[in-house]
Amino acid sequence: MSGSDLDRPYRGGFAGREHRFALTVYYEDTDAAGIVYYANYLKFMERARSEMLRAAGIDQRAEIERSGNVYAVADVAIRYRQPARLGDELVIVSTVEAVRAAAVVIQQRVMRGGEEITNASVTVAFLSSDLRPQRQPREWVERIGAFAADRNDDA
Amino acid sequence: MSGSDLDRPYRGGFAGREHRFALTVYYEDTDAAGIVYYANYLKFMERARSEMLRAAGIDQRAEIERSGNVYAVADVAIRYRQPARLGDELVIVSTVEAVRAAAVVIQQRVMRGGEEITNASVTVAFLSSDLRPQRQPREWVERIGAFAADRNDDA
Amino acid sequence: MSGSDLDRPYRGGFAGREHRFALTVYYEDTDAAGIVYYANYLKFMERARSEMLRAAGIDQRAEIERSGNVYAVADVAIRYRQPARLGDELVIVSTVEAVRAAAVVIQQRVMRGGEEITNASVTVAFLSSDLRPQRQPREWVERIGAFAADRNDDA
Amino acid sequence: MSGSDLDRPYRGGFAGREHRFALTVYYEDTDAAGIVYYANYLKFMERARSEMLRAAGIDQRAEIERSGNVYAVADVAIRYRQPARLGDELVIVSTVEAVRAAAVVIQQRVMRGGEEITNASVTVAFLSSDLRPQRQPREWVERIGAFAADRNDDA
Repeated sequence: MSGSDLDRPYRGGFAGREHRFALTVYYEDTDAAGIVYYANYLKFMERARSEMLRAAGIDQRAEIERSGNVYAVADVAIRYRQPARLGDELVIVSTVEAVRAAAVVIQQRVMRGGEEITNASVTVAFLSSDLRPQRQPREWVERIGAFAADRNDDA
Repeated sequence: MSGSDLDRPYRGGFAGREHRFALTVYYEDTDAAGIVYYANYLKFMERARSEMLRAAGIDQRAEIERSGNVYAVADVAIRYRQPARLGDELVIVSTVEAVRAAAVVIQQRVMRGGEEITNASVTVAFLSSDLRPQRQPREWVERIGAFAADRNDDA
Repeated sequence: MSGSDLDRPYRGGFAGREHRFALTVYYEDTDAAGIVYYANYLKFMERARSEMLRAAGIDQRAEIERSGNVYAVADVAIRYRQPARLGDELVIVSTVEAVRAAAVVIQQRVMRGGEEITNASVTVAFLSSDLRPQRQPREWVERIGAFAADRNDDA
Repeated sequence: MSGSDLDRPYRGGFAGREHRFALTVYYEDTDAAGIVYYANYLKFMERARSEMLRAAGIDQRAEIERSGNVYAVADVAIRYRQPARLGDELVIVSTVEAVRAAAVVIQQRVMRGGEEITNASVTVAFLSSDLRPQRQPREWVERIGAFAADRNDDA
């Protein structure tokens, strides 16, 4: 890498409709059982979702500052299938399953090479500054919808 | 409190078959949206489960040192219903839903007074040092089972 | 403990001029080296400082909501002397070293029984909502000063 | 980026004797004051040190598995100069200040563009599996020493 590339944070990106985000397991991610602590996969997944939204053209921070509206996780169903360990290279593969007026459903898998470590279904709700459900901006729905799995572009 | 009480860590305890574990929300638990970060509820719940197991007479650390066997979370289904904020006083209410040979299913609710903030169903698997499913020690099954919701003591 | 005591979060307290805050090491605190991860001592210390300020009659959350003013850490010098492990019972012993117009210097030691695990000197600055140094409310300076090590009550 | 590049975790790298590691601030890193939580800079710095050691040819995980020997932080002096916020792009700039038989002293600065957010001096000790000071492998001393600031290559 050149010097300027070194200073550019990695953000992952879309490969077709799949958003891919790679990371390495550091000490902070592990626990005394020698494996990634279970809550920390949710951190990995949130990093990937933040980058997926950004790659789709959505600026969460500008929206918070403008309107106070934020995305917040409404529910998660996560299955831990294999442990990951210090130094492992993982890829978070995220796909948009559904886009609704005030929520987005995202499937996220944590892969180590061809092996699935963890998978989750995450529902993210859009909330006003007083944390009530709020319609997403119309153009956000379109931008996220462009990556949705159930979208039929051939129609 | 007396001086010696001050130095005794709070561990919660059982009230009937419900294990109750209180905590305060600190800065470390919150995020820039001003609320408890979603992954951190899993930390709260793990603290409560550790204390529940301990209160039931199970010493996880001695078992790790003796056999290498550990409990690891197999799956979690969590619903975020209300946000919690800096300084909130929360109580984690945990109940044993089922005890199987190599796993325990635990229901956990995060309460703020009478209001449910979050609830989760957590399946914890018992694993050998090479992280394969392992039968729980017989006496652990009995100890945990004594608090199980579906146990029929009247039989 | 009675049922209502179970639901009351532990907050530590002052024993003379020393604030004492006990906690147990959970999985979330440890790493793959089997010991408490170094950054997590700063979380323990912040919990203790939050409770120390509260015990001195300072409500940080009300102040944030009223004025936007917050305490933020300006510098930390921390020495890691002994490792702590899963299940260890630790006590954070905090003393106010100095109170200045816009800052407080606090000494914090993490003890395991009579053994010092970690010690730190922490300077906390009071900042406006745009994060510029700000004079602390006069009554806060008095309240914190009442616990300061260099205060001469006999004068 | 091509698909395979997407799946390759970013690891930063040396630019001369400076190791540079870029990252983005995510929700997990922030707190209710709207800024990066003070303990989390230590996580950023540990990621950067792990990659710096790796780039110097040191495999910490293989060493733990082989000998049980680990690097552990002995002391940190950190100054928080400016707050960082959600979405900020930061670069951790790390330089080896000194290499001793059983320890390495590393200077780490967190930069946002040309602005220094935080700086720290970190001493890392090499410890045996029972956590006693241990001489670093000779070749590690040479590899790290090759990047040391006080090395005089012209001698």
